[in-house]
Amino acid sequence: MSVRYATAADVPTILRFIQELAEYEKLPDEAKATEEDLQRTLFGPRPYAEVLIAEQNETPVGFALFFHNYSTWLGKPGIYLEDLYVQPTARGGGHGKALLTQLARICELRNCGRLEWSVLDWNQPAIDFYENLGAGPMEGWTTFRLTGEALERLALENSN
Amino acid sequence: MSVRYATAADVPTILRFIQELAEYEKLPDEAKATEEDLQRTLFGPRPYAEVLIAEQNETPVGFALFFHNYSTWLGKPGIYLEDLYVQPTARGGGHGKALLTQLARICELRNCGRLEWSVLDWNQPAIDFYENLGAGPMEGWTTFRLTGEALERLALENSN
Repeated sequence: MSVRYATAADVPTILRFIQELAEYEKLPDEAKATEEDLQRTLFGPRPYAEVLIAEQNETPVGFALFFHNYSTWLGKPGIYLEDLYVQPTARGGGHGKALLTQLARICELRNCGRLEWSVLDWNQPAIDFYENLGAGPMEGWTTFRLTGEALERLALENSN
Repeated sequence: MSVRYATAADVPTILRFIQELAEYEKLPDEAKATEEDLQRTLFGPRPYAEVLIAEQNETPVGFALFFHNYSTWLGKPGIYLEDLYVQPTARGGGHGKALLTQLARICELRNCGRLEWSVLDWNQPAIDFYENLGAGPMEGWTTFRLTGEALERLALENSN
């Protein structure tokens, strides 16, 4: 069992894991990314996120995709874990924990104050796992999203 | 009325706005950042976030602090707005809308699919303003946070 940083050669594997995770989340049609998208945005001149790969006998069995967020209260960056996934056949082997442990180490090394992520409210096994690590839910805040035509419309406003 | 990118010379202003926003959010003691923290993490060799300043008669009256997040479903970056603040005496003058409009334009220019932010559940004036723009709440997901001793403890786990 080991964890390493992904390289551009892992793009097909990362895409497969993203699609498998969307299926597990019961939203398979939402995963619209292509290999070209991942190549450009993760391994191009301006990478927007980083990826860790969990391996068993040198075969990838899971991944963690993360980026830096920022706390204005702390005046320092944090780490936001966008996706954490371990293939069903490899579950129970400690890969999820190994990926999170590596992320906590990266947090400490980079002087980040927080490790954050989102979980689907019905995913009780994941919630139990996270609370067991000492993580807690952020109560009292709701995330808003502006996308598609509403985003385009705002961009075209003649406000100044 | 105008919006411009902040420079290192704006650090004292940005810190004052962060503290004023924490007071408005009824959590003034949470704003622990110092000028040195902001200087290093926003204007050092590796900036972790970007800042827009709203001005009235060339005097700063508000700010927006944002960074790039990432959607694995879209295979492209988004923009996450961490703080949006306009001073009470300047409210109603369109500065909040001007900051959001500029962010929507940056989204389009950088090929980002989404503009996201979080709002306190009791802040109904803000929620009304956001829904009026066409933004909607993300239902069914909860953000978890690991910080402090629990984060240090995980970093020290001997998992591989």
